[in-house]
Amino acid sequence: MFDPARLREPIVQAPMAGGPSTPALAIAVCEAGGLGFLAAGYKSPKAVREEITAVRSATDQAFGVNLFVPTPVPAEPGSLSSYLRELGADAARLGVELGEARHEDDAWQDKLELLYEQRVAVASFTFGCPGVEVIARLHAVGTAVWITVTDAAEALVAQAAGADALVVQGSEAGGHRGGFSDDDDAGGSAVLALLRLVRRAVKLPLIAAGAIADGAALAAVLCAGATAGQVGTALMLASEAGTNEAQRALLSQPVPTCLTRAFTGRLARGLVNRFLLEHTATAPSAYPEIHHATSPIRAEARRRGDADAFNLWAGEAHELAEARAAAEIILTMGAGARQALAEVSARLSSASA
Amino acid sequence: MFDPARLREPIVQAPMAGGPSTPALAIAVCEAGGLGFLAAGYKSPKAVREEITAVRSATDQAFGVNLFVPTPVPAEPGSLSSYLRELGADAARLGVELGEARHEDDAWQDKLELLYEQRVAVASFTFGCPGVEVIARLHAVGTAVWITVTDAAEALVAQAAGADALVVQGSEAGGHRGGFSDDDDAGGSAVLALLRLVRRAVKLPLIAAGAIADGAALAAVLCAGATAGQVGTALMLASEAGTNEAQRALLSQPVPTCLTRAFTGRLARGLVNRFLLEHTATAPSAYPEIHHATSPIRAEARRRGDADAFNLWAGEAHELAEARAAAEIILTMGAGARQALAEVSARLSSASA
Repeated sequence: MFDPARLREPIVQAPMAGGPSTPALAIAVCEAGGLGFLAAGYKSPKAVREEITAVRSATDQAFGVNLFVPTPVPAEPGSLSSYLRELGADAARLGVELGEARHEDDAWQDKLELLYEQRVAVASFTFGCPGVEVIARLHAVGTAVWITVTDAAEALVAQAAGADALVVQGSEAGGHRGGFSDDDDAGGSAVLALLRLVRRAVKLPLIAAGAIADGAALAAVLCAGATAGQVGTALMLASEAGTNEAQRALLSQPVPTCLTRAFTGRLARGLVNRFLLEHTATAPSAYPEIHHATSPIRAEARRRGDADAFNLWAGEAHELAEARAAAEIILTMGAGARQALAEVSARLSSASA
Repeated sequence: MFDPARLREPIVQAPMAGGPSTPALAIAVCEAGGLGFLAAGYKSPKAVREEITAVRSATDQAFGVNLFVPTPVPAEPGSLSSYLRELGADAARLGVELGEARHEDDAWQDKLELLYEQRVAVASFTFGCPGVEVIARLHAVGTAVWITVTDAAEALVAQAAGADALVVQGSEAGGHRGGFSDDDDAGGSAVLALLRLVRRAVKLPLIAAGAIADGAALAAVLCAGATAGQVGTALMLASEAGTNEAQRALLSQPVPTCLTRAFTGRLARGLVNRFLLEHTATAPSAYPEIHHATSPIRAEARRRGDADAFNLWAGEAHELAEARAAAEIILTMGAGARQALAEVSARLSSASA
C-alpha cells in the first residue's frame, strides 16, 4: 500500500476539480518527486478513465484519484427555490438560462468500479467517508484510501472505517470544505490547530492542506505532525494547470478570500468578487443542486473572462502563488522546507547552548 | 533594545487582559526562559504600576507590558442603542443593571507616561498603531515597541512607524482580534498564511500568535518565519493564571469556538455559549461601549460560575491546554519544538538521500 512517508518530496498535489487539475499537472508533480492527483469530481467516468490512461502513459510513478462522496439527501426545497429566483437576474445579465438544480451522485458507483479496475496507488475522498465495504474493496486491489477531514470527530470515523491516511484540511484552504457535512458556517479550525487536535485523536499518517504556499510553510506543517503537505493554490499558476486566465490574473493580487455557498451550495473558499458578495448571505446549503443551477452562469462568465461572475477558488496564501513549471514549484518548495528546518534547528541549538 | 531572538525559550506569554494575566504568570514565564507579559488593558495606571513593581521584585528578567490603543471615534448611536435594548433581558435575568456604554480611552496618556517612566523591556500594542512620537519616546527610554498586526498592510504601517517587532495574530487566536480596525467580520487570515504574507512585506522580527498549543506547533511557526511564538490559551490553565474556574472547566473540553462582538463590541474568539449564540448576529462594532455595558452582566455571571453568560476567550486549539505550572508548560513546549525539528529534519534528510 502506498506510504506517503516514502515520497521523495513530502508534497501531494491537491485534486482541484473544475479545471485546474489536468493529467499534465499530475504527471509533472509525480516526476518531480511529489504525488500527483486527478480530480474525478464533476467528470464522467469515461473522462476519468482517459485521464488515468494519460498519466500512466507518461509516468511510472504513483498517483492518486479524488472522488466526491455523494450528498445523502436532496436540498430543502423552500430555501433552494428562493435562492434560484434570486439567481435569475445573474443568468439574465449573461444571457443564459439557469441549469437544472438536480440532485445526483456524480456517478459515484461507476467511478468506484473504475477505481476497483484501475488499481491506482491512492484514492482520496472528499465530502464524506465511504463505507467500510468500499474501503475494503479498494484495499483488496492495492489502493490506499485517504479521507478528507476537518475536525477530530471526522478523523475518528475515518480511522474506524479503515482509512490509510487523512487529508487534514484547515479553514485557510481554497475550494470546497471537504468535511463530512456542510453545517459549519464558520469553516472549522485552521490547519495548525487542526493537525494537533487530529494527531491527538488518531495514529494515521496526516496530509496537511491549507496555506502551504512555500517551503517554510511546508516545513511548518511537517513539524506540526503532517507526513506531507497537500498543495493546491500554489500550483494554480503552474503552466500545466488548467486554471482560467481571468483567475490567473487575480491570484497573485492582494484580493481577500472568504467562505461562500453562493456558487455551489456547499461552503468553499474563494477570492471575493461581485457574485460572491451579492449572494453569500442568502445562499443555502444545497449541493449539488446549486452547483448545477449556476453552471451555465459560470461557464459563460469564464468564456467572457468576467471574473466577477464565476467561482475563483483560492486559499488564504494565494498571493504567494508563482507562475512557474510545476516541477520547479515542487522542487523549490522541498528545498525551502529543508532550508527552513536547518535554519530554525541551528538557531534553537545555539539559544539552548 | 530587547531582541526576541535572544530568549532562552522562543516563547512570549500573550497578554490576556480581563483576568488570566497576573504578575505571578509573567514572573513564572520569565524565570522559565520565555518573555512574561502584563496586560494593562482595562486596568488603572495605578494597578499597572503595582503589577510592574511586583514582577520586578521577583525577577531580573526582561518582561513586557501590553496597551490597548484607543478607538478613535465613538460607536454609531443607532446600532449601539438597539443592541443595548436587546441586552436588557440578559441584565434582568442576572438581577443587574447594564453598565454605562461610554466611549473612553482606557487612560491611554497616563499609561504611556507610566511606560516612559518605568522603562520596561517591551511595550506591545493592540487595536492600532501608536504615533511615531510615542514610539520615539519609548525608544528613547530603551523600550522596544511591538505592534499587533493581522494583515500585511498593517505590517507595512507598523514598520514605517518604527516598530521593532510585529505580533502576527492569526485568526485562530483566542480573545480580541488585535488589528488596527474592527471591520473584517471574517477575522482575517490564519497564522500560517499570515506569517508568510507578512514576511514577504517586512523585514522585522515576527512573533506568531494563534494555536500555539504545544512544542510541535511552536516549531511550526518558527519554520514559517517567526522568531518566537506568543502563547495565550495554552497558559490559561496554568496555576499562576487568573482564569475563572468556570472557564477552566470548559477549556479542555471539545467545545467549538467562534468570532463574536457580543461581549465587547469588538471581534474576539471565544468558546461558544448561550450569550454568544443569542447575540453574535446582532452585536455591532462598538468598542469599548459594549464592553462597559456588558461588564456588570459578565461580572455577575463569573461570580455565579454561569459560563453561559460571560466571555470565554479561547483559541482554536484550546482543548490541548494543560493544568500545569507555567514553567513546566514553557519548558515542555520548548523541548517539544526541538524534538519536532529534529524528527522532521532526520526524516527529510533520509528521504532526500
